[in-house]
Amino acid sequence: MKVCIPLRAAALALAATTVHAAPAAPPVDVFIGTAGDGHTFPGAARPFGMVQLSPDTQVRHFRQSYPWASGYRHDDQSILGFSHTHFSGSGHSDLGDVLLMPYSGETKLEPGYPERPFSGYRSRFTHADEKAEPGYYAVRLQDHRIDVELTASERVGLHRYRYAAGEPAKVLLDLRQSIYDYASKNLWARLRMRDAQTVTGMRETRGWAPGRQLYFAVRFSQPIAARQLLNREEGVEYKGFAPPGKTPADKVLVEGKALVGTFEFAPPPGNALLVKVALSPVSEDNAIANLDEMPGWDFDAERGRARDAWNTALSVVDIDAPEPMRKMVYTGLYHALLAPTLFMDRDGSYRRPDNAVHKADGFRFHSTFSLWDTYRALHPLLTLLAPEQRNADFVRSLIASRRHSPYGILPVWQFHGLETWCMIGYHAVPVIADAYMKGIPFDADEALAAMTASAEYGPYGGLEHYMKLGYVPIDLEPEAASKTVEYAFDDWTIARVAEKMGKRDVAARYFKRAQNWRNVFDPKTGFVRARKSTGEFRTPFNPVQSNFGSDYTEGSAWQYSWYMPHDNAGLIHMLGGDAGLVAKIDQVFDAKVDEAVYAHMEDISGLIGHYAHGNEPSHHVAYLYNYAGAPWKTQARLAQIVASQYSDKPDGLSGNDDLGQMSAWLVFTALGFYPVAPGSNEYVIGRPFVERATLNLPNGKRFTIRAENLSPANGYIGKVTLNGQPLARSFLRHDEIVAGGELVFMMQAAPNKDWGKDRSARPYTQTPYR
Amino acid sequence: MKVCIPLRAAALALAATTVHAAPAAPPVDVFIGTAGDGHTFPGAARPFGMVQLSPDTQVRHFRQSYPWASGYRHDDQSILGFSHTHFSGSGHSDLGDVLLMPYSGETKLEPGYPERPFSGYRSRFTHADEKAEPGYYAVRLQDHRIDVELTASERVGLHRYRYAAGEPAKVLLDLRQSIYDYASKNLWARLRMRDAQTVTGMRETRGWAPGRQLYFAVRFSQPIAARQLLNREEGVEYKGFAPPGKTPADKVLVEGKALVGTFEFAPPPGNALLVKVALSPVSEDNAIANLDEMPGWDFDAERGRARDAWNTALSVVDIDAPEPMRKMVYTGLYHALLAPTLFMDRDGSYRRPDNAVHKADGFRFHSTFSLWDTYRALHPLLTLLAPEQRNADFVRSLIASRRHSPYGILPVWQFHGLETWCMIGYHAVPVIADAYMKGIPFDADEALAAMTASAEYGPYGGLEHYMKLGYVPIDLEPEAASKTVEYAFDDWTIARVAEKMGKRDVAARYFKRAQNWRNVFDPKTGFVRARKSTGEFRTPFNPVQSNFGSDYTEGSAWQYSWYMPHDNAGLIHMLGGDAGLVAKIDQVFDAKVDEAVYAHMEDISGLIGHYAHGNEPSHHVAYLYNYAGAPWKTQARLAQIVASQYSDKPDGLSGNDDLGQMSAWLVFTALGFYPVAPGSNEYVIGRPFVERATLNLPNGKRFTIRAENLSPANGYIGKVTLNGQPLARSFLRHDEIVAGGELVFMMQAAPNKDWGKDRSARPYTQTPYR
Repeated sequence: MKVCIPLRAAALALAATTVHAAPAAPPVDVFIGTAGDGHTFPGAARPFGMVQLSPDTQVRHFRQSYPWASGYRHDDQSILGFSHTHFSGSGHSDLGDVLLMPYSGETKLEPGYPERPFSGYRSRFTHADEKAEPGYYAVRLQDHRIDVELTASERVGLHRYRYAAGEPAKVLLDLRQSIYDYASKNLWARLRMRDAQTVTGMRETRGWAPGRQLYFAVRFSQPIAARQLLNREEGVEYKGFAPPGKTPADKVLVEGKALVGTFEFAPPPGNALLVKVALSPVSEDNAIANLDEMPGWDFDAERGRARDAWNTALSVVDIDAPEPMRKMVYTGLYHALLAPTLFMDRDGSYRRPDNAVHKADGFRFHSTFSLWDTYRALHPLLTLLAPEQRNADFVRSLIASRRHSPYGILPVWQFHGLETWCMIGYHAVPVIADAYMKGIPFDADEALAAMTASAEYGPYGGLEHYMKLGYVPIDLEPEAASKTVEYAFDDWTIARVAEKMGKRDVAARYFKRAQNWRNVFDPKTGFVRARKSTGEFRTPFNPVQSNFGSDYTEGSAWQYSWYMPHDNAGLIHMLGGDAGLVAKIDQVFDAKVDEAVYAHMEDISGLIGHYAHGNEPSHHVAYLYNYAGAPWKTQARLAQIVASQYSDKPDGLSGNDDLGQMSAWLVFTALGFYPVAPGSNEYVIGRPFVERATLNLPNGKRFTIRAENLSPANGYIGKVTLNGQPLARSFLRHDEIVAGGELVFMMQAAPNKDWGKDRSARPYTQTPYR
Repeated sequence: MKVCIPLRAAALALAATTVHAAPAAPPVDVFIGTAGDGHTFPGAARPFGMVQLSPDTQVRHFRQSYPWASGYRHDDQSILGFSHTHFSGSGHSDLGDVLLMPYSGETKLEPGYPERPFSGYRSRFTHADEKAEPGYYAVRLQDHRIDVELTASERVGLHRYRYAAGEPAKVLLDLRQSIYDYASKNLWARLRMRDAQTVTGMRETRGWAPGRQLYFAVRFSQPIAARQLLNREEGVEYKGFAPPGKTPADKVLVEGKALVGTFEFAPPPGNALLVKVALSPVSEDNAIANLDEMPGWDFDAERGRARDAWNTALSVVDIDAPEPMRKMVYTGLYHALLAPTLFMDRDGSYRRPDNAVHKADGFRFHSTFSLWDTYRALHPLLTLLAPEQRNADFVRSLIASRRHSPYGILPVWQFHGLETWCMIGYHAVPVIADAYMKGIPFDADEALAAMTASAEYGPYGGLEHYMKLGYVPIDLEPEAASKTVEYAFDDWTIARVAEKMGKRDVAARYFKRAQNWRNVFDPKTGFVRARKSTGEFRTPFNPVQSNFGSDYTEGSAWQYSWYMPHDNAGLIHMLGGDAGLVAKIDQVFDAKVDEAVYAHMEDISGLIGHYAHGNEPSHHVAYLYNYAGAPWKTQARLAQIVASQYSDKPDGLSGNDDLGQMSAWLVFTALGFYPVAPGSNEYVIGRPFVERATLNLPNGKRFTIRAENLSPANGYIGKVTLNGQPLARSFLRHDEIVAGGELVFMMQAAPNKDWGKDRSARPYTQTPYR
């Protein structure tokens, strides 16, 4: 593997025609997470950009979709093409829209097979010929002898293809290809010549989201000399009367389910053909209008703008840390700034959850909300570090989505405006609640209405039973144990918002619902368990059992029984006191677990005992020791997790990055604290992994974290000061950070078992039941 | 057959709860054309309405589509349901959108088989239980014991279902059903609950027009008590995560390719459930907004409004004639006022030929242009009789379509905004030209640009060769002979417009192109023949041969050789003078033709010799005698045609009505004149079939036609007076009609062979070649 480091990127920029004056770039390795189960992509995008332009290496086969969820796997040796939409780190998948492939020589309309070079348009590549940095990706296509470079603005992807000297330039556009591909995914597509340099089109797919329409405009830097517009469908019952154009070369427009376009050009000046591709949620005309976002044809300048955008975005924190930690944290921050992606035209048009078109009124519509994952740490990280307006846009996008939801509820797992119904919970609620509690400005009344509507929508995920019984019954609804505890937490965040808004009745109702986790906690076994509608726990009970549709969601009792982050005091009580919690969490980590136990669940990865860092239900668990007065144990576990679950290698994420949640965990943890209970306005102190980090906050203030005597040997906190005063408690308050100041950790080799031990020093327990 | 006559309609209205004061209704039998090859539908619509709500009787089978082009065949004995879009008289077909079927008893999700009563939701009916008039249709569904009544506003269909006393009301909505149906036609569909009384949805189909999206809103007169939203697809590779709702009864929304909804209601007051269905080209929300076009639930009042709209529309002419002629002519006028249909929401939104959404700027967008048929007589009839603004809207719709055509050309056969590429020619051109020559107001410069763009678009129908060679070569393009003569006529109309606009260069160029018919006329054989690119006529030549893709379009040399309506003088010259033309046309009619010769071509029907009144290429032929100074022969032929090709029975149209062209022929012919060459501003005088007709012209003036001594025996014109002065010529000028006045025919038993014989008395010959 050969990854890009800033010096190399700068050197490349210097070598190019137009040199852009770039500020110092934080070290990011976009290949981290592209191997193993990370499912990240190495391509070019702007922060939260609509276009995420990246190479696809996958083999078209539905059953093998999981490993290629982002289109690219680091261990592949050939590239299929470059498409404009990707999820960063998802488990399930879709996208891979508008695949372009430059080629030389004979036109081959099929991609061919990786194991048979030259069997199609696919080309071999090596990592030695691959270079990437935020906003830029480059590779040499060996079989075609073409150097490819990619960059992007928010809505436009820019390609530069350098062909062998004097050779004609050729590009293939394949609208059949897709991520999570299968024969009947494409519902319809259109490809249309607009002028000598411009092609537009659309594709409608039945994928993760049904009936998804995406429009695009492709503009080449020089006139098309020859072209073919083809529909490769076979066995169509009725094809309609033929439009003008006798051959694929004469066609102005082609429609169907299996479209391919080929475009040939005279040998381009400097051997370089440039291609812009704009996307639109709404129409081909809007895609053309979106092209104006990127005027001109100066690739290096665009690359410079993308890098500037990233440097600005990443400069929210200045980090001093030994390598590779500094790179890992900045890469984590990079991955945290990829979604929720913009999904709106320049004129404000976007596609709503009911698949209708709407114009945003004074905000930017974002989509791609992987909420079951990202409510935990990604959104709290963005709320802390991203500009206030950006956060307000995220919340307003959620609320606008609810306004136009056919169900009248907030998104569950949304992308391109559409709902996938993936995973459980109503976790848009804690995202909104956390933002509200931290002062992000939006219409609180509509937000609260949206939250309660989501929490009270009976047909969703057993809510009708949950509201009646106080828990989700497993005989009526799968994954009932997980659903009950997650609903209870979401309910607590509604109560928090209602309380702050002075709506006492709503607060009381939801504080009560927040206690529902107790209804599925079995004190006898000490586990959260699935209960039947008749009241008894389901038997037989096996705490290591997990399966799709079982009692738990992508997890087992060993993973799900500690999820009442708003009521850890209650959990401690259930477990017989502090010692009980400490013993249980120790058991989680220290258990000898046969990996085969979880091997059937793709998402349960990154195992330390039963602790599965590769999936989200575990993410808060190491921090629970603080609630029992034993932060030194948290500190030790974090060292263990960071060392085993993250690295600066392509397989440096132990599980799906899940649109930035895995990365946000690392960023928070490296800074020394973590938002165990979003909505609480508290961050539980872990331990820092960086020597110094200055948060350049949206309000203009700075908050610096320093770790004195940090070294691999000194993994424990001796003492902590906040603004020079000793800090006895093992948590921080949000207002303490945003006020600016300095947090200093004195690190040492031996645990300080007294710090954070006192009851008063422990993080937020529960709001009393009223 | 039991058809509705006005007295019965009035009686029905009186019997209803709310009596609408209806003006005297002209006699229309909407069942004329529903048997044989007429392909008309008997359902309810407003003039040019977007909703054309009619019963469908067809059997779902692709290969049998032709007979059910309008969904209904008079000889069928069972009804499948009532859908909201139909073509009136087309050959090819599509539509049949949003099929509703009220039912009683057990819910059956499949339509079942006509030959097996109660095998599905289909129901038997008899014509004795069927009643209809313009804007109203009623039938009793025997198997369900339900009385159905239908009426419509422009965008909303209104159903009234009367169930047996005390029975619950049940309705099925089948989004699988379609006209010209086949398994893969449905690309996607959606069905969504909006409130207790409202359901919305969409369907996207790959039919005659590809990728057609249509949206709808269904509102019931009382709350839905129980429902099922189902997708009956099988073998779907990936269905996505399940949305809320465990059973079809819980669903709020369903998407897929094979949707069915069932809706049940408490026994309705008066046993009558009413249902409104609004369509929208654009969105479900717009469909809901379109519902407001029809506020309230007063079926009889709505029926009255529809009848008033028709009475107003039909009152453009007052006719005295013996029955059944009066009914036949009014029914013809009714059929002439069904298309081009409105295709625009109340807010002005419509779908363009590039399938994008647009808002009309100051006009009403109409679609359903069956131009190869309708440019001949339907559009001239509308230009003469329909309000100026309506005609301007038709032309502006054509021009707007060209503005947004991916090809930059005018529509060929358009419906729902989309192009089908059906038939030949660029016959939007003569529609626009005729309207322009007759003073309909629109932007002439854009119109001329649109016309020349269409005439010069090389990839369309061999135009590149036509422009180079002066004819379409048969070795490079099928149906070359027909295309050449039709292009030449269209070109002449462009020249006429350019000449009137003072654009002499354009006029000269197109007057020259208008002579191109000569390049395919073979003086040796006396026929229009297909020529090869090398110059020679294709051999072997058989003047009775016809076939799809042959030398001619739905015709033979015997049918196509007389089509240069702008240059009949040239034709006469080619045939060796007047006697030559008369002899040839006599041969056309008098030939003894084995019907088997044309039996393989569905569209060639209504044969008299080689004359095929059932298809359009023959429509002007009987009028050609006038050009040779023998109008008495035209008079005789018209009597022969009217007597044999039209009747007041369901099979009273001898061929497809083709969106009103067959009917418009009858209306013009009955009045005594016909627009042989649209764009000439001349009407060739045939002979009247009515005793008196007063045209109530859009400009407020009246033009009366009287036929004195008219009787079956007196079929010849003795003399003609215009405003009291003898009229020696055998044609009228458009300005003479719109000035108002009186045209009197003195009919007699013997032909007057002198009238119209003089060269100066003959209709327009050719504009000299410049």
